[in-house]
Amino acid sequence: MDKNRAIVFSLTSSVELAKEICKHAGLPLGKCDVTHFADGEIMVQLQETVRGKDVFLVQSTSAPVSSNLMEILIAIDACKRASAKSISVIMPYFGYARQDRKAKPRQPITAKLVADLLQAAGATRVITMELHASQIQGFFNIPADDISAMCLIGNYFLEKKMGKDIVVVSPDHGGTTRARKLAKALDCPLAIIDKRRPKPNVAEAMNLIGDVKGKKAIVIDDIVDTAGTLMAGIDMLYKKGATEVYTACVHGVLSGPAVERINNSRIVEFVCTNTIDQSDKLDDLKKMRVISVAEVLASTIERIEDGKSVSEMLQKFSYTASES
Amino acid sequence: MDKNRAIVFSLTSSVELAKEICKHAGLPLGKCDVTHFADGEIMVQLQETVRGKDVFLVQSTSAPVSSNLMEILIAIDACKRASAKSISVIMPYFGYARQDRKAKPRQPITAKLVADLLQAAGATRVITMELHASQIQGFFNIPADDISAMCLIGNYFLEKKMGKDIVVVSPDHGGTTRARKLAKALDCPLAIIDKRRPKPNVAEAMNLIGDVKGKKAIVIDDIVDTAGTLMAGIDMLYKKGATEVYTACVHGVLSGPAVERINNSRIVEFVCTNTIDQSDKLDDLKKMRVISVAEVLASTIERIEDGKSVSEMLQKFSYTASES
Amino acid sequence: MDKNRAIVFSLTSSVELAKEICKHAGLPLGKCDVTHFADGEIMVQLQETVRGKDVFLVQSTSAPVSSNLMEILIAIDACKRASAKSISVIMPYFGYARQDRKAKPRQPITAKLVADLLQAAGATRVITMELHASQIQGFFNIPADDISAMCLIGNYFLEKKMGKDIVVVSPDHGGTTRARKLAKALDCPLAIIDKRRPKPNVAEAMNLIGDVKGKKAIVIDDIVDTAGTLMAGIDMLYKKGATEVYTACVHGVLSGPAVERINNSRIVEFVCTNTIDQSDKLDDLKKMRVISVAEVLASTIERIEDGKSVSEMLQKFSYTASES
Amino acid sequence: MDKNRAIVFSLTSSVELAKEICKHAGLPLGKCDVTHFADGEIMVQLQETVRGKDVFLVQSTSAPVSSNLMEILIAIDACKRASAKSISVIMPYFGYARQDRKAKPRQPITAKLVADLLQAAGATRVITMELHASQIQGFFNIPADDISAMCLIGNYFLEKKMGKDIVVVSPDHGGTTRARKLAKALDCPLAIIDKRRPKPNVAEAMNLIGDVKGKKAIVIDDIVDTAGTLMAGIDMLYKKGATEVYTACVHGVLSGPAVERINNSRIVEFVCTNTIDQSDKLDDLKKMRVISVAEVLASTIERIEDGKSVSEMLQKFSYTASES
Amino acid sequence: MDKNRAIVFSLTSSVELAKEICKHAGLPLGKCDVTHFADGEIMVQLQETVRGKDVFLVQSTSAPVSSNLMEILIAIDACKRASAKSISVIMPYFGYARQDRKAKPRQPITAKLVADLLQAAGATRVITMELHASQIQGFFNIPADDISAMCLIGNYFLEKKMGKDIVVVSPDHGGTTRARKLAKALDCPLAIIDKRRPKPNVAEAMNLIGDVKGKKAIVIDDIVDTAGTLMAGIDMLYKKGATEVYTACVHGVLSGPAVERINNSRIVEFVCTNTIDQSDKLDDLKKMRVISVAEVLASTIERIEDGKSVSEMLQKFSYTASES
Amino acid sequence: MDKNRAIVFSLTSSVELAKEICKHAGLPLGKCDVTHFADGEIMVQLQETVRGKDVFLVQSTSAPVSSNLMEILIAIDACKRASAKSISVIMPYFGYARQDRKAKPRQPITAKLVADLLQAAGATRVITMELHASQIQGFFNIPADDISAMCLIGNYFLEKKMGKDIVVVSPDHGGTTRARKLAKALDCPLAIIDKRRPKPNVAEAMNLIGDVKGKKAIVIDDIVDTAGTLMAGIDMLYKKGATEVYTACVHGVLSGPAVERINNSRIVEFVCTNTIDQSDKLDDLKKMRVISVAEVLASTIERIEDGKSVSEMLQKFSYTASES
Repeated sequence: MDKNRAIVFSLTSSVELAKEICKHAGLPLGKCDVTHFADGEIMVQLQETVRGKDVFLVQSTSAPVSSNLMEILIAIDACKRASAKSISVIMPYFGYARQDRKAKPRQPITAKLVADLLQAAGATRVITMELHASQIQGFFNIPADDISAMCLIGNYFLEKKMGKDIVVVSPDHGGTTRARKLAKALDCPLAIIDKRRPKPNVAEAMNLIGDVKGKKAIVIDDIVDTAGTLMAGIDMLYKKGATEVYTACVHGVLSGPAVERINNSRIVEFVCTNTIDQSDKLDDLKKMRVISVAEVLASTIERIEDGKSVSEMLQKFSYTASES
Repeated sequence: MDKNRAIVFSLTSSVELAKEICKHAGLPLGKCDVTHFADGEIMVQLQETVRGKDVFLVQSTSAPVSSNLMEILIAIDACKRASAKSISVIMPYFGYARQDRKAKPRQPITAKLVADLLQAAGATRVITMELHASQIQGFFNIPADDISAMCLIGNYFLEKKMGKDIVVVSPDHGGTTRARKLAKALDCPLAIIDKRRPKPNVAEAMNLIGDVKGKKAIVIDDIVDTAGTLMAGIDMLYKKGATEVYTACVHGVLSGPAVERINNSRIVEFVCTNTIDQSDKLDDLKKMRVISVAEVLASTIERIEDGKSVSEMLQKFSYTASES
Repeated sequence: MDKNRAIVFSLTSSVELAKEICKHAGLPLGKCDVTHFADGEIMVQLQETVRGKDVFLVQSTSAPVSSNLMEILIAIDACKRASAKSISVIMPYFGYARQDRKAKPRQPITAKLVADLLQAAGATRVITMELHASQIQGFFNIPADDISAMCLIGNYFLEKKMGKDIVVVSPDHGGTTRARKLAKALDCPLAIIDKRRPKPNVAEAMNLIGDVKGKKAIVIDDIVDTAGTLMAGIDMLYKKGATEVYTACVHGVLSGPAVERINNSRIVEFVCTNTIDQSDKLDDLKKMRVISVAEVLASTIERIEDGKSVSEMLQKFSYTASES
Repeated sequence: MDKNRAIVFSLTSSVELAKEICKHAGLPLGKCDVTHFADGEIMVQLQETVRGKDVFLVQSTSAPVSSNLMEILIAIDACKRASAKSISVIMPYFGYARQDRKAKPRQPITAKLVADLLQAAGATRVITMELHASQIQGFFNIPADDISAMCLIGNYFLEKKMGKDIVVVSPDHGGTTRARKLAKALDCPLAIIDKRRPKPNVAEAMNLIGDVKGKKAIVIDDIVDTAGTLMAGIDMLYKKGATEVYTACVHGVLSGPAVERINNSRIVEFVCTNTIDQSDKLDDLKKMRVISVAEVLASTIERIEDGKSVSEMLQKFSYTASES
Repeated sequence: MDKNRAIVFSLTSSVELAKEICKHAGLPLGKCDVTHFADGEIMVQLQETVRGKDVFLVQSTSAPVSSNLMEILIAIDACKRASAKSISVIMPYFGYARQDRKAKPRQPITAKLVADLLQAAGATRVITMELHASQIQGFFNIPADDISAMCLIGNYFLEKKMGKDIVVVSPDHGGTTRARKLAKALDCPLAIIDKRRPKPNVAEAMNLIGDVKGKKAIVIDDIVDTAGTLMAGIDMLYKKGATEVYTACVHGVLSGPAVERINNSRIVEFVCTNTIDQSDKLDDLKKMRVISVAEVLASTIERIEDGKSVSEMLQKFSYTASES
Repeated sequence: MDKNRAIVFSLTSSVELAKEICKHAGLPLGKCDVTHFADGEIMVQLQETVRGKDVFLVQSTSAPVSSNLMEILIAIDACKRASAKSISVIMPYFGYARQDRKAKPRQPITAKLVADLLQAAGATRVITMELHASQIQGFFNIPADDISAMCLIGNYFLEKKMGKDIVVVSPDHGGTTRARKLAKALDCPLAIIDKRRPKPNVAEAMNLIGDVKGKKAIVIDDIVDTAGTLMAGIDMLYKKGATEVYTACVHGVLSGPAVERINNSRIVEFVCTNTIDQSDKLDDLKKMRVISVAEVLASTIERIEDGKSVSEMLQKFSYTASES
């Protein structure tokens, strides 16, 4: 990698992660001031030349979502006008990913809107992790690399040496593919929580497909937001005979009552990554374990700069998307 | 509806459907010649003025997919250059819908490409039926109305008066939401075929979630293509005690060995719609029943022309997308 | 005006103003739910059909700026996908207007970025009031109508019957043109506060060009933000012999210590408009008087719908931009 | 040429030509799978990384035209999403070139549509050979290099040592410029077949401008499609005293009855190039001679990669476009 | 036609023509000031509201070409920003039409550039007369109506009652199609001037294909610029026995020595249209006859406004493009 | 700087400046023919390959404005089609800069139009000097570097060694910021000419803010066009006691009576730069001194090619924009 050609900037939501990425990549973190004025407007002032450089902007659009998104858009504009050669936006957590279709008439498709805004501002590439729906890649006309974090979570549990009796649990039908990847990494069986109405107008029942009896269960999801649905599942797994229930997710949004709910639950460990900065929650949520995605993102930057395949690199860390 | 303002043209894949739509809407079918030359090039020659009109082009991108898509693109170009006021493309079957994400590295996202091509040619609106993934609406920057056909299929079975003991079956986890809509329409329970590996490196097993014993089962999917997977499911349902197995889908692609497979199977009835023209298969596939989508599409055109809500109209025929 | 063709929606920053506009225009306010979720994401759900309609979205991008801007962008996307005929954004206060050029190297031009974002989302027209720099109109490729509020402020003071001895004061050289308009409306002389360094490296001095002795002075600006600079000017005017000092502005941003500063100052009256909602500040800032821009905006909507000249209508309320 | 930076892929219509080009350029042919599924959809799967590379896609849009065009568009999309640095489309035969204007009201301009589709998909450069109308270059906003094949055909006849008594014949007025180039290369006179009505409502007559008596005539055209018009010309040339009649063209479309017609005619030799693959016709059309364009295309790739003038290189092979 | 919806403006090159068009269409000519300042900058100030109107701008890009083009672009910008509903540019003479391809390496394609500039400024439709190459229609992505003037010229000569012995002459091979249209209108034979080198390196010879002996010859071209080539042809026609030679063209550019050459020639009458204003040349060029295109353009405007077919209307005046 | 990668072309308005720039940058001036035909059309023919090169086009849009602008647009098109890697337009004087907003209803914003045209043609960067309003940078979506010439003018006067008693004068309120920069460079006080109406309907009076008595005054502006306003100011400065009055500007437009006015005035020296070529005026205007901007533009090219900060380089010559 030509270290004079690449420069990484961090905006406010992902400062710690950006520092870690730079350390792994052997790059200094670019200097850039992000100011929030008294009236709520934001100024991004690059303190280093980006003329002719490949710029990487690191920023998750976690809460405050609008403000974090606006920071990126403004930073892209500044880089574009300062003659950056390319502007890659690293959004480890891509906010609004769940608003990816019109669920009701006259709704927006905000995930597409965000993709359009990033491109209108001048982004030339986007790098995300574990997108809620892989179709969102198609919302972009610029290269969009989505990197799975399943192997990182797999490695975490492998290193824990939890023994043979483990089972991976998908909290719903939509997450089966993702859970299957983790089960493969851990070489263990899979179970699925099946929320459904056997008949219309009958209350939703929660069943379990597969067996958790006498096993340590790992419930895996992409996003844990208010953690409401998760709670009901945990109790059911214990009822079905699970000996310990772990939960893991990539993006720990943890909004509203989430932290309290997890604390009060019988979850043994809550594992997530630092796609969203969790440093402010670690004190309140003692059972949280945070896995860093910095190394895989640093490798991605190196690969992009060297014109090498990112998917090959991912095989070191993870499964390719095609395995499932 | 101002009948001097709207004009419907049919291209080669959907001639019968377009005629039916026009009959329901009380509109004459516009004259337009589609010529395929000896060298494979296509010419679309509009035989009526479209100056200042709202044009509706009816064409499914079923096989031959490339040629059918090219016909639409050429027709759009002709309409645009002839000063049409708006160009709405009615694609009851949207080909390439399943290529909606990069399943492996270095793959295209052809569903997005098709959306981009339609817009580049000059389409101002797209109307589809039962899109494979609802995220595809977000591939468009023009209004994209996707219309569910579940209620039409529901009405068909309701009118059949099959008795109380029926069950709707989803052939995989991904189709649960769609199957649930049909189950609600029929006021009956739901079952799911669960294909999964209990452990990695163990052959895929096919289980059934829910109960079909003593019941008439209706397997519902959006697309039936080669019908390979379907076949295994049918046998399993009979083994699990289903008394009769019906299959229904919106888009009967029926490529390769599909017709033979269905003929040879224990399927009682194969129900699909005319989003893809089935007239050439009716002789070979005696157990096929085809439901027409013409009326709902005619109503959609009327609503668009009158500036009324399409979703309200759909409630007459169907459930809104928000119910599931 | 065809009242079935136009529909006005309000987003969260300008609810009261939108209601007033609708009252003046004789239009019902469209129903639309704006939800801010626990994780910070926003959903805009239109509750009425907009198919084929001219939509007017009313929203100032005052604080919280990012969130208010995001609401507009999402609402535009929803309208576009729901087949609105046109989408006019009424931003009485256009946030980021002061970031209209690169004041230092490697800065963004955020006012241009905002213009690009609105257009990328799908806005077809923008209506603003008293833009900080009139060049911002050129940031748009869609029609951008900027409406002066000087006459409204002029009328306010005329109706006050303050007598002959009044003088309009511009707080700096940049505001001279705007102040001149008000002076003309009030048929009174003009003074300018002249902040400058007579020599480099000498402290900035504040002089007064023109005469305020024995007069009631009205300091006029487009925006009052933290009110810091304003305060020094007020004291100087009293020193120079002004008998009473009034201040007037169009956009009362009033961030940080502004309210306290104005309260503690010798300002007799602080006049602004409701381009930014001031209802939460009226209790704290007793000397504030708020002039409504609703009628002029309602007339603008009527003129647009009827295809009549907006500038002609403005002559009723105001001076054309060309007079100065 | 940096051989690590350039990569050539072949799609299905031009496999042999692409292999030859690679051999001349000293580049390996990139691996890429093109699959046509049973339902008619196409998948292009690149089997090598293209990240940061200059990709050259070789594909003529000869029959099946729609399918061949769709392959290119899909391949471009795959390359774009896989972060190719540039995507040059080498279309030795550009299908639809003859639909380059509205010949009748309400016709499309399909050659422009194709140009727009290639650009919408993401092509960054197009390389064609002997475009039917040079104005088509103007249909592109990306660089479009059109390379004449007249010198290759000239060299073929020069090497044949046909003696002094030869004459080049243009089959119509539109082809005079092209024929003149060949006549210059062969240092021989030119004749023109003059189809015209001396008076309106009188049957079209075929005259010859110039003299072919006692000479070997070479009839030159850009495209031979169904060969209908050609046949009448051949007979007339013999009647006018030509001793032998050769025909040459760049693009041997040869659709419908063309092969049979040529076989049955008194044409001595039918010369064309491999811009369209002729390998399947060589057995049926014994008098066909095929000239390869591979070397000139390989040189073009080398020149582009080395940032050298393509037109200079062409002087080695051919006349510059400016001579005529 | 809704006369409140359409408005016609004239810029400086086509004032007389625009007035005539308005008279035929029964529309008042819109008021608009075009100012050329001392420093060479141009200001276009619309003096009437265009809000919601269909604007027609009449301006040929004859000399001074750059200035006339700039006037149109500025007028389009003014109309767009003043909320015109549509902006149709009527360019009876489309300058730069002859620069429609790269005749040499590294040349521009200025006709395409002009098309792009008009669209970038905001034109929504273009109306031209007798384009030099019909492919230029494909340079536009907006509707581009090209109207032939051959029938107007035909009618002129028919009304002259010149007797039976007339012949239409095309000055070169490229103009044969155009000449054939006129010959058909006059029901007379056609001749072609054949400039060619029988052998390379031999001086160009001028032959005549067809017979003019004892006839009145009408030489027809689209453009007469410096009239150089024309002169040689005239002499040759007299030598070949023509009794009188008339020349006709659509666009009388008449630059440099053209007027003098025609005056000094044996041309009996020089017929052209007013696509380019000829009023300043009528005194110097007594043998000029100018045919007005105003009526056909007025009808075109009416047809566009009424949403009727323009090609149908043209049949009244002219042949459709498809006849040749 | 890689001298094989960069190439500079001059168009007709800035030939001498381009030569000087090339001398400073050590680059040969690229060969390119600009032809103005008899009919007013322009042809730009590049005589050197630009394939893969960074092209710099030097051309001010001074009078003849339309023609000079058209030359640039055509040259950009030629470069784009000839595969230039980047196309930077160096417009030392950006014509139409004063038409940067709608000063009256229904006016164009021609400065924005010019920005759009340059981008539509294919420019990838714009370099200007001392833009009339810095907001014009925001009219571009490509990098736009505006370079101040104040330090060059400062250096000129410093080298003159005019003694201590000098004062910089701004001719109006709008130019204060610019004048302040020069005053800082010269370490001298500032005065402002204050044209204003003390009361409406009273004639405009010209006052002076600051003191010029016994001093040499330097009146500084960005543009001197007809020099009308300037004249009145000069007399007033002498009346107020200035011993000598110098005038300086960046862009000497000098249209209409400007040269005569300056000659007849008591201006001691008229200083401007060569952003506009003044060679034809030097004989008539003996008191003109022209400062070259060639070195700073040559350095800018070098910095861009080397990927170094342009703003850093400017500190050598000038103040950064942020100082004021």
